[in-house]
Amino acid sequence: MPDRRPKVVILGGGFGGLEAARTLRRAEVDITLIDRQNHHCFQPLLYQVATAALSPADVAWPIRHILRLQQNATVLMADVTGIDTQQRQVHTDSGDLPYDYLVIATGAMHSYFGHDEWSEVAPGLKRIEDATRIRRSILIAFEQAEIMADPDEQRRLLTFAIVGGGATGVEMAGAIAEIARQTLAADFRRIDPRSARIVLIEAGPRLLPAFLPVQSDYVRDTLTRAGVTVMTDTMVMKCDARGVDLDSGRLDASTTIWAAGVVASPAARWLSAEADRAGRVKVGPDLSAPGHPNIFVIGDTAAVSDSKGRPIPGIAPAAKQMGQYVGKLIAARVTGRASTKPFRYMHLGDLATIGRHAAVVKFGTLRLKGFIGWLFWSVAHIYFLIGLRNRFIVAFSWFWSYLTFQRGARLILARPAEAPQER
Amino acid sequence: MPDRRPKVVILGGGFGGLEAARTLRRAEVDITLIDRQNHHCFQPLLYQVATAALSPADVAWPIRHILRLQQNATVLMADVTGIDTQQRQVHTDSGDLPYDYLVIATGAMHSYFGHDEWSEVAPGLKRIEDATRIRRSILIAFEQAEIMADPDEQRRLLTFAIVGGGATGVEMAGAIAEIARQTLAADFRRIDPRSARIVLIEAGPRLLPAFLPVQSDYVRDTLTRAGVTVMTDTMVMKCDARGVDLDSGRLDASTTIWAAGVVASPAARWLSAEADRAGRVKVGPDLSAPGHPNIFVIGDTAAVSDSKGRPIPGIAPAAKQMGQYVGKLIAARVTGRASTKPFRYMHLGDLATIGRHAAVVKFGTLRLKGFIGWLFWSVAHIYFLIGLRNRFIVAFSWFWSYLTFQRGARLILARPAEAPQER
Repeated sequence: MPDRRPKVVILGGGFGGLEAARTLRRAEVDITLIDRQNHHCFQPLLYQVATAALSPADVAWPIRHILRLQQNATVLMADVTGIDTQQRQVHTDSGDLPYDYLVIATGAMHSYFGHDEWSEVAPGLKRIEDATRIRRSILIAFEQAEIMADPDEQRRLLTFAIVGGGATGVEMAGAIAEIARQTLAADFRRIDPRSARIVLIEAGPRLLPAFLPVQSDYVRDTLTRAGVTVMTDTMVMKCDARGVDLDSGRLDASTTIWAAGVVASPAARWLSAEADRAGRVKVGPDLSAPGHPNIFVIGDTAAVSDSKGRPIPGIAPAAKQMGQYVGKLIAARVTGRASTKPFRYMHLGDLATIGRHAAVVKFGTLRLKGFIGWLFWSVAHIYFLIGLRNRFIVAFSWFWSYLTFQRGARLILARPAEAPQER
Repeated sequence: MPDRRPKVVILGGGFGGLEAARTLRRAEVDITLIDRQNHHCFQPLLYQVATAALSPADVAWPIRHILRLQQNATVLMADVTGIDTQQRQVHTDSGDLPYDYLVIATGAMHSYFGHDEWSEVAPGLKRIEDATRIRRSILIAFEQAEIMADPDEQRRLLTFAIVGGGATGVEMAGAIAEIARQTLAADFRRIDPRSARIVLIEAGPRLLPAFLPVQSDYVRDTLTRAGVTVMTDTMVMKCDARGVDLDSGRLDASTTIWAAGVVASPAARWLSAEADRAGRVKVGPDLSAPGHPNIFVIGDTAAVSDSKGRPIPGIAPAAKQMGQYVGKLIAARVTGRASTKPFRYMHLGDLATIGRHAAVVKFGTLRLKGFIGWLFWSVAHIYFLIGLRNRFIVAFSWFWSYLTFQRGARLILARPAEAPQER
């Protein structure tokens, strides 16, 4: 192709897709990045939006603003409906786009293990809208409990169930405990917010299985002291609008939060490619889809193993590394150089925060906990936040919360579907 | 009533209701403040949320947090459905509440002059939800224009109609012009955001009729230079999803914003009291409802005139003054002192900003415009913002926008009704 610049289409503006686009900034290609949202969402801090500590705009940034100075990149807000690998075209709800190279970085969504109807009553935490929905549910539960005369119903309203003891579940449980015990403590007259029950439910034998057992024990103790009821080896049988059925009995709750599992976006179906149990495309050593050397699948959508055969976790650094690898590979191919070096994942570490002053860190050989762990966690997250402005605002919000125990974004916004038009 | 503390029920946590509650903080009364929202909204800055400069949480604050240290005040989030003046009870969707004194401060909503169906296609700007809806509409118009091939449709998408040339209309027009000309200027590849048409439509002969004619001329000139098309003496005949019919012809637009008129909340109906054309209750000199010396109507819900017979405008300082007056009056009555001094309104001034560096101020004998006016406007608004934290964040956000021309809250959030559950 002497005259025409190769077309690179990237699906998804998350960590992987954005990194692929940025890595190609000096390449002689025309990049089109397509996302259904106009913003990149910094998912690791989404739980802080759900717990009213940060505003949505503090953890999200318009994709086209991030790429505004990269002249070889065009950003389109559209829904991908399919891929024609024969004609090399991406179908969207706004028309078709031809590609020479395709990067699929469409991420994952929550998996309810065959019970999709639970998503109505037990939202997960993937998008900004999920976070504001959960924030609304938590805050409104306290409001309704203040009005409620029936003590049983009051108790149900003040019970919060979190399903899944990974990093998101632990962070949500710690943050809700903080809201109940500190933020709201003085704000009500009829109820005592400190009596709220926060129940963290984990099917496996311990919290945070990616960490060391001694760290899991520390997290469990810290959460328990903060007022969280931790239930391990406990299965959820059913979720409904008024609570969850556990294998150990019924738990009535106002809010159920799903942090138990994810399934990849439908890339495997688009490509008619083989997928693993979580729906992820089994890619080759260069992250290309089987039989499609010009189509790459990265991030949570790809099933990749590290050099020791262990699956690569669905976390931001992994997605970024894959995006960078594919960006470099395409840049090399375009100039005629062949890059045959396989993708190699470098695990930086694991971080999870439990709340004020407490976090666990497993970083190389480094093991941290408590206040030092929390400081490490804070600095790492602020450092990786995109956009200078957001770093300032997030740092300031945290410092402020730290001093005052307050949370700045305690808004209950009507869901427009149920909002009356004229009042 | 020797043993029982008198019950004061306040309906509405806006400027008037909140000020009434605070004024009663040392009175021997039990206050219950009821609002359908959990937050007090700083309406004068709502247009900045609608134009992506501030986050919702920057201009709103939980009512119960504001009153958390005032032990004689209880805050309930509930919907008022009616008032029984015989039994002295307020009916809400969560039960009945008895009162000895009632303060009605339920504000106003947009008036579509008998065309309520226009509210679907031409939202006003009263609630946080209105602001995020308008923000979504403006930002998505640019996104769709970038995808659109048809030039006529592209032109329609990049046309924004604002109905009403008062302070809100002027501020919205100035802010949208700034978004198109500066914030988004470099972010698109296929469209030039600077080609957007912003049309400000006013039925009367000039913008900002509360100001001096020379100030109206200044505002018109400044807006025109900023790229706004100002149409005075122009009537809107009909609003639909694709634009507005004017008496001078058709204007196709992607977004129509209604800033043309308000009507009071249904307090007059609840009380079977006489109302003026805007639905406001005609109150006595002590702001009590006719025939109900223990029921007071304040803020945008009341029709009051100043000492010269001119109607008191529906602005925050007027509502606050009425709230303070009624609070003092109830505090006096409770201790047996009779306060017969009628309410007296003190007009502080009028402020309106046109955008970066430009505002008009009419404050006592003071007349300001341009940069000095804008500084005065900024300081006044930050000063009146509730909550120390919000002052910091708003000041920082403005300073940042001023330096960078950027806006921090450019989020398009799905309206949950149309959001797919699982993607």
